[in-house]
Amino acid sequence: MLIIEYDGGLYHGFQIQKGSLTVQERLETAISTLAKEPVKVIGASRTDAGVHALGQVVNFESGITVPVSKLPVAINSLLPPDIRIKAAKPVHNSFHARFDAVEKTYVYRIFQAPIASVFYRHYALWIRDELDWVKIDKASRDLVGTHDFYSFAASGGSAKTSTRTIHACIIQKEQELTELRFTGNGFLYNMVRNIVGTLLEIGWGKRDVTSIPQILAARDRCYAGPTAQAHGLCLESVRYTTV
Amino acid sequence: MLIIEYDGGLYHGFQIQKGSLTVQERLETAISTLAKEPVKVIGASRTDAGVHALGQVVNFESGITVPVSKLPVAINSLLPPDIRIKAAKPVHNSFHARFDAVEKTYVYRIFQAPIASVFYRHYALWIRDELDWVKIDKASRDLVGTHDFYSFAASGGSAKTSTRTIHACIIQKEQELTELRFTGNGFLYNMVRNIVGTLLEIGWGKRDVTSIPQILAARDRCYAGPTAQAHGLCLESVRYTTV
Repeated sequence: MLIIEYDGGLYHGFQIQKGSLTVQERLETAISTLAKEPVKVIGASRTDAGVHALGQVVNFESGITVPVSKLPVAINSLLPPDIRIKAAKPVHNSFHARFDAVEKTYVYRIFQAPIASVFYRHYALWIRDELDWVKIDKASRDLVGTHDFYSFAASGGSAKTSTRTIHACIIQKEQELTELRFTGNGFLYNMVRNIVGTLLEIGWGKRDVTSIPQILAARDRCYAGPTAQAHGLCLESVRYTTV
Repeated sequence: MLIIEYDGGLYHGFQIQKGSLTVQERLETAISTLAKEPVKVIGASRTDAGVHALGQVVNFESGITVPVSKLPVAINSLLPPDIRIKAAKPVHNSFHARFDAVEKTYVYRIFQAPIASVFYRHYALWIRDELDWVKIDKASRDLVGTHDFYSFAASGGSAKTSTRTIHACIIQKEQELTELRFTGNGFLYNMVRNIVGTLLEIGWGKRDVTSIPQILAARDRCYAGPTAQAHGLCLESVRYTTV
């Protein structure tokens, strides 16, 4: 398995799509070149277009002869600078980066200030208007636990059930930058961005601070808020019990 | 006066040059459009190609009718997203952003790790090999005070004297990222980058930890180390007594 960092700005998401630049395609091209045979990779999360990763995990099978400890540098030499392999570990043949993941952490960054930030422009959502962070923090607690998150899922996902467990939702604010960190056993398609879009409406006073339980109960996407922009989101880490 | 943040990555430096994309040209074009007359700006620091700014200061004279409090938003609407006016203040006619500056702070960022960082790739110098930060910190103390910094200046500067006072050199390390922050009454052309290039050689053990006083005494550019890359450098703030 490989642990991978990428700037999603240029990519049409992680998952391979014919005719589009994707992270998976870049990875497979680099690894296949090194392996001198076609290699397919399996990613833990199908991050969307524009979404970043600090700790995406992939696995692949190949007869590659480079020692595992030298794989990151060898693969990186064949990758663009906006994708970096941070680490490599040998895993059992049966290891599956997506199915074996027991916990994922996503962070959504918000830069709230009257003037946008040049340095966060690609990595945080700029919000001009003041937000009530106390309300956002309070409302976010209703997301923690095991719930049916159907109302927060975009159509088009492949999940069989929309029940997920959010273990923690932690909000950290440092000057203009706020990080909303979600840890859970899994997330539905667009779920974090739809949750953030809803929390922002609560922070603006457009929605009541107690509205999360009603949205969850409705099981209807129309009850939740809009999808927050992709560039604020980053897949921070994926946890496994088997490695 | 305006306080300005910019990502220097795309620009051939601050100062206007015919046929090149510069921050000054972008600013003058935006302000002139708003003023409906040609406006020239004076910058506190002529940052080089690729160097960033968090707190560049400029002044200009114009019969612009927009109230000062609304100037940042009005000018920003005419600027690319990698240049942002953060604040505007009215100043006396005699104010000069460069001549009236009493102190400047530059920060140089170094990302030291076996694998490069995707997110710092445009904002910190990546160093693969370990550095002895204790030695760098010790050597940096010999820079503080009033010295003739001729050995650390690139040719091509317009300064009459090469004597400058460095008030502080503070090194802050947080995991792989280290910030070297230099505060002084002024800096010669390429001075910070040449100092950093020299400190790096000390950190690698290529140069003795006590070599700074000898380099200063030599008054010869050949005695100092190489010029560290531009993208690690950021003009953080400029201080005035008159505003």
